Amino acid sequence: MSGELFSEERSAEVVAASFANTPDPRLRQVLTSLVGHLHAFVKDVELTEAEWAVAIDFLTRTGHTSDAVRQEFILLSDVLGVSMLVETINHRTGGTSTESTVLGPFHMVQSPPRRLGDDIALDGKGTPCLVSGQVTGPDGEPLAGATVDVWQTNEDGFYDVQQPGIQPPGNLRGLFTADEQGRFWFRSVVPRFYPIPDDGPVGQLLAATGRHPNRPAHLHFIADAPGYRPVTTHVFVADSPYLDSDAVFGVKESLVREVPEVDDPARAAEVGLANPFRTLTFDLSLLREDRA
Amino acid sequence: MSGELFSEERSAEVVAASFANTPDPRLRQVLTSLVGHLHAFVKDVELTEAEWAVAIDFLTRTGHTSDAVRQEFILLSDVLGVSMLVETINHRTGGTSTESTVLGPFHMVQSPPRRLGDDIALDGKGTPCLVSGQVTGPDGEPLAGATVDVWQTNEDGFYDVQQPGIQPPGNLRGLFTADEQGRFWFRSVVPRFYPIPDDGPVGQLLAATGRHPNRPAHLHFIADAPGYRPVTTHVFVADSPYLDSDAVFGVKESLVREVPEVDDPARAAEVGLANPFRTLTFDLSLLREDRA
Ligand SMILES: [Fe+2]
Ligand SMILES: [Fe+2]
Repeated sequence: MSGELFSEERSAEVVAASFANTPDPRLRQVLTSLVGHLHAFVKDVELTEAEWAVAIDFLTRTGHTSDAVRQEFILLSDVLGVSMLVETINHRTGGTSTESTVLGPFHMVQSPPRRLGDDIALDGKGTPCLVSGQVTGPDGEPLAGATVDVWQTNEDGFYDVQQPGIQPPGNLRGLFTADEQGRFWFRSVVPRFYPIPDDGPVGQLLAATGRHPNRPAHLHFIADAPGYRPVTTHVFVADSPYLDSDAVFGVKESLVREVPEVDDPARAAEVGLANPFRTLTFDLSLLREDRA
Repeated sequence: MSGELFSEERSAEVVAASFANTPDPRLRQVLTSLVGHLHAFVKDVELTEAEWAVAIDFLTRTGHTSDAVRQEFILLSDVLGVSMLVETINHRTGGTSTESTVLGPFHMVQSPPRRLGDDIALDGKGTPCLVSGQVTGPDGEPLAGATVDVWQTNEDGFYDVQQPGIQPPGNLRGLFTADEQGRFWFRSVVPRFYPIPDDGPVGQLLAATGRHPNRPAHLHFIADAPGYRPVTTHVFVADSPYLDSDAVFGVKESLVREVPEVDDPARAAEVGLANPFRTLTFDLSLLREDRA
């Protein structure tokens, strides 16, 4: 390369030109855009040298906080809404199917296969809840044999992997196979809101900006069926705190459900739950796979 | 906070609103701008989930590569032109004084105080060069007793701190005090171009984009005088390779100087250098300190 020299006015163009020989055109495109927006940000706020040094230190500590079981850069991406934006851009539905939301960091273990009707609350604690729904295609066709992978916190706001020795492994997780009508149902407990890990640099950022670290109560879902596009999403509990201020911006209106109480001893006996119990209904609609 | 839910269209506004309670208005301003530009970048390129994962991994490895003696995030800022942009924005001169450029990572030790005329090439290697100049104020007034801090590579392209046991400590460094006319002069050798550290993630980025890691030959300067604003800069050798493709974008036209050869045994004997020798002249003009 044989380049124009750096100037404040032309800084982004000069740096972008240095990528002219990038073999991969997509990499070149991404870096050119990144440099343009990054330089525009620095110019927009007229970043001081002291602020730049704080940013370098923050990024370095964010890296040092990350290891095999803790990913602080993902957390940073989450609290800046970047994770949700990437998720949303890559799973546009046009309102024709169930909306997606972030996967989150707690799907780190395989959900144990279970039978329809099983109780995933292995420790028997919490407010009993019957969860049920139907998986369909875009024209409402039932997807027989669809898989429904679910995981959630206990009533204290922790996933099983966060409380080894306290919760049994596989507690509040399950991989279900829908019936001939695409229907699924299982017994569980009402999930609780919980804080994202806030003892690192991202937690300091939240504290410095007056933000809380909490996510509203939700149940994670991945629904899939052959020939259809899988959807990774949550269902949110309508009366949960923080529903309008999720620390990672994961809430979508279409994913919120009431969890009404049923007080009916006969029905409770039928489904195998203590009376009274709560019910959560969440139907999932999948798009067909794109054809090449 | 009680927020609008996330949407692709309003993503930046929704996240910016989460910073509404930030006590420090400057922090709020910087984060709001950052989020705006970051989301615009993601939307501009429609970043895929795989690319997002590559970015998370790259940033994590950049953090892990950084330690007490290696700062990979500064290097990343350098090769993206951000360091130069911050430097330039914070040291606008309007063409009325010597332009600044990046400090770089090799001013990690105090330069040893030396007397005018001293030879800073302690190992006696390289092409001899007489370096001289004058430090003045904005109206050309000589700044008697100005300090001139200099450091440079040897002819192999290494700073002393990079070659402990090979170069003597303080080799090719010196802190000079200008004379009554603001003049300084010392003996050295012609510096050589050198690569920035390229065995980490930033080196991988340069390789993936077809960029070389080199900086053109230069001599670092920090000039200062009481009542004036210090200037941190380089003088670049006019015939050096990479002058038009500095890996960190540090070159400014006004900082490039010819280093002509002098073949004059009498003059060589006078200044204490072997004949022939090279000469480099670099005058520095400082702005007056801002008054409050
Ligand atoms: Fe979760
Ligand atoms: Fe240097």
